[in-house]
Amino acid sequence: MGSAAASPPPSGKMSQDELKRVAAHRAVEFVEPGMTLGLGTGSTAAHALDRLGDLLRAGALPGVAGVPTSLKTELHAARVGIPLLPLDGARIRLSIDGADEVDPDLNLVKGRGGSLLREKMIEGAGERFVVIVDESKLVPRLGCTGAVPVEVVPFGAPHTLGLIRKVFDGFPGFHARLRTVADGDLGSAPFVTDNGNYIVEMFFEDGIRGDLQDVSDRLLRITGVVEHGMFLGIATTVIVANTDGTVTVLHRKSKLI
Amino acid sequence: MGSAAASPPPSGKMSQDELKRVAAHRAVEFVEPGMTLGLGTGSTAAHALDRLGDLLRAGALPGVAGVPTSLKTELHAARVGIPLLPLDGARIRLSIDGADEVDPDLNLVKGRGGSLLREKMIEGAGERFVVIVDESKLVPRLGCTGAVPVEVVPFGAPHTLGLIRKVFDGFPGFHARLRTVADGDLGSAPFVTDNGNYIVEMFFEDGIRGDLQDVSDRLLRITGVVEHGMFLGIATTVIVANTDGTVTVLHRKSKLI
Repeated sequence: MGSAAASPPPSGKMSQDELKRVAAHRAVEFVEPGMTLGLGTGSTAAHALDRLGDLLRAGALPGVAGVPTSLKTELHAARVGIPLLPLDGARIRLSIDGADEVDPDLNLVKGRGGSLLREKMIEGAGERFVVIVDESKLVPRLGCTGAVPVEVVPFGAPHTLGLIRKVFDGFPGFHARLRTVADGDLGSAPFVTDNGNYIVEMFFEDGIRGDLQDVSDRLLRITGVVEHGMFLGIATTVIVANTDGTVTVLHRKSKLI
Repeated sequence: MGSAAASPPPSGKMSQDELKRVAAHRAVEFVEPGMTLGLGTGSTAAHALDRLGDLLRAGALPGVAGVPTSLKTELHAARVGIPLLPLDGARIRLSIDGADEVDPDLNLVKGRGGSLLREKMIEGAGERFVVIVDESKLVPRLGCTGAVPVEVVPFGAPHTLGLIRKVFDGFPGFHARLRTVADGDLGSAPFVTDNGNYIVEMFFEDGIRGDLQDVSDRLLRITGVVEHGMFLGIATTVIVANTDGTVTVLHRKSKLI
């Protein structure tokens, strides 16, 4: 982990949502006039959108525009007055988004919400990526607290699932399944991503041990795997809302901002 | 290249299509009763389908069934009486298909027809993959004779194209473009694959020099790249129809059949 700075605790007791808001506001402090931003998706990122909208309306951030990572974010950003740009041709200076897990090297698990591909494309394209999380998302190893999603092509998805299982043969407690959604009388149907693909959810008893880049390459080599939810070396800064009300800012050693 | 055996030239002059047919029949000699086959797509593979149908009707190959790599092949196989199976759950013993290029290590370029993902999934899943080509497909390096296709997610495709160009920065004469199809009054539209994706076509002045597995990993690491048309280490046997009318059978050293 890189340098860390903790802010003094705010007065009074704050709710989980208030903590997210405080961390999101801290992330928005990295935004400068004229920047094109990658705009994340989720309840924490939503606070950043609201804050950006307030600052834009106050005239504090002229020339700022955003590239949304989902339709939901696109609608939210438009509502609060953030000018939007398509990814193609945009030079993204800074992205702000939440994460499902953060390891000591600031590698992330993202995409439990299901939109990992667009997030990875946009957040990986920028110069800086500021992640906002609460303390519960800090983990010793990725995969400790829940599913690691993998986006797969629908054709042959059960076959692809079988090949994914082979990659993790021997990992303690590993299991994987196709993500489904309730589908009325039909019982359940595969969850479908923005890109028309399916999601395989991988679970580990005690997280992913070993070389994450190697694990990533082995997954990506499987024909039928489109992308996975491990964001390796993409986050540059992580802003942590601690349960005691303080905020900690972590910087990746190799790419300090 | 592995062991090679040339058959004596047949009497009389044969057309290109007749040569393809001879090579396809030679490939079908590898099929044994009870085998589940991966069935390729294209004009050369079509000859193998016809031959399989003849042998099945003659009762020479009881228990043989096929997993088709495209809808076109599915229809053709059904017409000639080859029982079909879905990929999921099938144990593919042998696949037969054509290729766009074959290098001295029996690595292939495939997918100029546009269905690389399903072909790679099915042909990579089998124990053996017999490739049928005419002599013109033998190349010193992949990418010598035309496009190497890359299947990409439609979202952000121009951005993904830019990242693909970066992988080959400095390669002599490299260029890449989105594959398009004529679209009436609209001029042209992106070509759409079976999986709803786009195709980026990569062109090299003198083929791809360097470590192909490394090039493959660098492409697959790009968010937005689904798969590419380099089939590395998948072909076990290549049957070559020579212009002089002979047939040469090449076996990969590491996986002789």
